[in-house]
Amino acid sequence: MHFTSERRLEDALEREFTLGDIPGILWTPEPAAAPAPLILMGHPGGLGRMHPRLVARALACTAAGYAAATIELPGAGDRPPFPAVDEARTDLQRVLKAGEPVTEDIVDRLVLPLVETAVPEWRVTLDALLALPGIGGPVGFSGGVIAIATRLALVEPRIAAAVLFAGSYVPRSILEEARQVTIPLLVLLQWDDEGNDRQQALDLFDAFGSRDKTLHANMGGHTGVPHFEGDSAGRFIARHLK
Amino acid sequence: MHFTSERRLEDALEREFTLGDIPGILWTPEPAAAPAPLILMGHPGGLGRMHPRLVARALACTAAGYAAATIELPGAGDRPPFPAVDEARTDLQRVLKAGEPVTEDIVDRLVLPLVETAVPEWRVTLDALLALPGIGGPVGFSGGVIAIATRLALVEPRIAAAVLFAGSYVPRSILEEARQVTIPLLVLLQWDDEGNDRQQALDLFDAFGSRDKTLHANMGGHTGVPHFEGDSAGRFIARHLK
Repeated sequence: MHFTSERRLEDALEREFTLGDIPGILWTPEPAAAPAPLILMGHPGGLGRMHPRLVARALACTAAGYAAATIELPGAGDRPPFPAVDEARTDLQRVLKAGEPVTEDIVDRLVLPLVETAVPEWRVTLDALLALPGIGGPVGFSGGVIAIATRLALVEPRIAAAVLFAGSYVPRSILEEARQVTIPLLVLLQWDDEGNDRQQALDLFDAFGSRDKTLHANMGGHTGVPHFEGDSAGRFIARHLK
Repeated sequence: MHFTSERRLEDALEREFTLGDIPGILWTPEPAAAPAPLILMGHPGGLGRMHPRLVARALACTAAGYAAATIELPGAGDRPPFPAVDEARTDLQRVLKAGEPVTEDIVDRLVLPLVETAVPEWRVTLDALLALPGIGGPVGFSGGVIAIATRLALVEPRIAAAVLFAGSYVPRSILEEARQVTIPLLVLLQWDDEGNDRQQALDLFDAFGSRDKTLHANMGGHTGVPHFEGDSAGRFIARHLK
């Protein structure tokens, strides 16, 4: 892990890094007290474009005493293109424009390669982050592509709790994997999200094997998550990571 | 409104009352500061049986500076029987025991007479409560039979926000009335409530016309609402009543 930049933001230190060819950003509370619990922050891809929103989420974490980190999605931002996923995305846009149904084949080709690539990248990132002096555990995951978060919650035992955002396509195989997930979950669903299949989101919530799982559904469209849900997520994380 | 008993509980004054032949209980913060906003607390019927849980909810209200009040349901507790509803309840128990479907006819006969009777009773109770010196507004409603709460939210303009518990049968006509409800709502749903039709609860949440509505779904069965949802309800009420 190589740090490539560093700047102070309110009560946090923001450091960009690269891990191999994966770019990422780490925010740590300043001044650092004891080793901080860590929140891995997912996002839909494009660190540059997402930066203002990621900073807002990260500063909420550091204000509560957590470190926060994110990495770029495969094929997004400045990373090399991911032709298979790009092709599936083109197919998706074509059927959406034509008003045709989004087939399982398209969803699988769009999402599964991302899951297969991103999950091991998050895990090596986690290795590197937990080796840093100011970062301890436990570890939470928050947001991003829900299929990636689901796989990560299943295979990565260091993740103790996750806040998931039901706003993206879910391959059927991931729905099956969800049944084996057992960590505490808070699932946020935008009820009137025109780009999201509500029934699929409810099916996924139902599928999760976790005994402690909560669904929060709100109005306001895909990007209209109410401000108070940030506080809800913070309280959920605090219940499980402290 | 005649007060029939009075006792001190922590930082609250609990007073039983009768309004005509309707028994009820009022809890007010002690010492009283400015006129308190008021929370009307619904319940499934049986003030005596429900008293410990009602006191816990009421003390959470008074601790936050609200007055809280409840009245007995028609036909419940010490009130005269409600033969039509009792007959529908007997029919319901019979079909549940036989594993037969619960028909719309049974639900209508079970719930609509309660709604027709209880809603005007809540409204005259509200008149009487708001005429007391220590009680101001705004007014919130919380819990109880969701069909009663839905009708009340529709017809009683003094109710500014409501916390609803999706745990009872909903006649189709009430589902239609829900489309005209516009006040802010927090709907609590026990996802694995064996005695509750989950799809009906989701349909009802969907039907509400409120622009500001939130669904919280949790595990734990009908009576297993997690403790943290009490805090959620408190924050929701505070956002809308203060």
